[in-house]
Amino acid sequence: MRDFSADHRWLSINTATVRRQRGQDWPLPQILDACAARGIRAVSPWRDQIATAGLAATARQVRALGLELSGYCRGGMFTCADDAGRAAVCDDNRRALDEACELNAACLVLVVGGLPGALAGAPAHKDIAAARAQVAEGIAWLLDEARQRGMPLAIEPLHPMYAADRACINTLEQALDLCDALDPQRTGAARAGRAALGVAVDLYHVWWDPKLAAMIERAGRTRLHALHVCDWLVHTRDLLNDRGMMGDGIIDIRRIRALVEAQGYAGYSEVEIFSTLDWWQRDGSEVLDTCIERHRGCV
Amino acid sequence: MRDFSADHRWLSINTATVRRQRGQDWPLPQILDACAARGIRAVSPWRDQIATAGLAATARQVRALGLELSGYCRGGMFTCADDAGRAAVCDDNRRALDEACELNAACLVLVVGGLPGALAGAPAHKDIAAARAQVAEGIAWLLDEARQRGMPLAIEPLHPMYAADRACINTLEQALDLCDALDPQRTGAARAGRAALGVAVDLYHVWWDPKLAAMIERAGRTRLHALHVCDWLVHTRDLLNDRGMMGDGIIDIRRIRALVEAQGYAGYSEVEIFSTLDWWQRDGSEVLDTCIERHRGCV
Repeated sequence: MRDFSADHRWLSINTATVRRQRGQDWPLPQILDACAARGIRAVSPWRDQIATAGLAATARQVRALGLELSGYCRGGMFTCADDAGRAAVCDDNRRALDEACELNAACLVLVVGGLPGALAGAPAHKDIAAARAQVAEGIAWLLDEARQRGMPLAIEPLHPMYAADRACINTLEQALDLCDALDPQRTGAARAGRAALGVAVDLYHVWWDPKLAAMIERAGRTRLHALHVCDWLVHTRDLLNDRGMMGDGIIDIRRIRALVEAQGYAGYSEVEIFSTLDWWQRDGSEVLDTCIERHRGCV
Repeated sequence: MRDFSADHRWLSINTATVRRQRGQDWPLPQILDACAARGIRAVSPWRDQIATAGLAATARQVRALGLELSGYCRGGMFTCADDAGRAAVCDDNRRALDEACELNAACLVLVVGGLPGALAGAPAHKDIAAARAQVAEGIAWLLDEARQRGMPLAIEPLHPMYAADRACINTLEQALDLCDALDPQRTGAARAGRAALGVAVDLYHVWWDPKLAAMIERAGRTRLHALHVCDWLVHTRDLLNDRGMMGDGIIDIRRIRALVEAQGYAGYSEVEIFSTLDWWQRDGSEVLDTCIERHRGCV
């Protein structure tokens, strides 16, 4: 297991973590500069931030700063209620892939979607099995597109509390079943050693899973595309916007990182914290400095 | 599958649902009277309500009203940080069993506990595997006590969002693994056809599970001790106190009840709603009437 205590070379910042500071949007170009200024070597930006900052300009800035993308957030949201919705899903995911390629991201992270319409508060139906079938179809389609581009896809199982509105893939086992069904040979993407289809292991979503160790082992090096870290607060005040900084909650982060690294994972640990209640209220510089400190001390 | 549309003979009220009305405690004796007055035939009271109302007096009232107990809430909370804690856990669970017997409950429901101290906001450690081992030990011990009394135990898997502070058994599969380890022969309790150790299936906790159908089938009639219903709201505003009334959310209740009944389950469907944000603010009579209406229309 790598020693993270002496430096933060394996720290990546998911830019959601600092997308707001003192309650205001912090523009992506400034976030990237602030990361690079601190010796942070990797980021994982969100598509809406890229859309605001401009894809070409961001790609140039990323290259100029020598930053890597540990992932790109995000493709997915495959569930829809009609054919028009399906066409929009395809179009959107194709663009997400192209952007990930332009930015040279390590993988495109997939948040697969819940019941169609639920995120907007108007679920079209209650049939989660149908939503899951739609997701499987969507990933099968996208996988072909991704293979053509050499871009690995990382299915991110989301915590079961998001099953209705954000993602109906809720355990690593479920994600890996899908990986094995759609990519049984673990065919390589362009990135060395990575299967075309794998998973993003976000500790916030999977820490509770009694099968976590077994499923990390099952995933193995070829399907472990990303490791996201933050913490689970006791008590969590909001389902979406109360993620904790590493060390402030009850996730045994080091134990889980050890499991992942035992499979040969040697990539970044990406800090992803949504926190309207706390961190998004603070100064972005303070948040980044805290991420560095906690990455050394708690990850 | 039974037809619930014509009457509410299979409706049970978990008294948590109406423990408060208009934001004030509603005393248990009044709740029981209000249920009986509406032809509700079963309830599932909580221990603190019994403690306030008195065990003997409640037992007499329950008998006089002809009410059944579809379950008794609750034993468990097995995790603790030291020997003194362990002794208190044993003592408390022995009393829970005795109370369940005195009230002639169908089963004692077990909410097994999370990380020790976490419910009070001060977790003693982050080792959920250790907490789970402690839970297994605790249930093994309690099972002997329960067998002596002929009282079935029902492990209630809680939603993963409660893994840290309330229960580290979070899927039916995990609960059934424990049942099979501790009660491999599905030895009968006094109640006909029930294994000494089984599960309480609360839709709020398990609706999202991709293995739900398979695990209900695995449980079978002998381990399906209780069925709890409510709904998952989109969007849920609070992790603990925002459960929805049946029909107001996205759980496909009928489909899941059909799965349970396909195994031969023919007991009550017990409405259990914690809702400081909505139902606990209303008049208890209105809540009970709504439970009856929704039980007929949505369960």
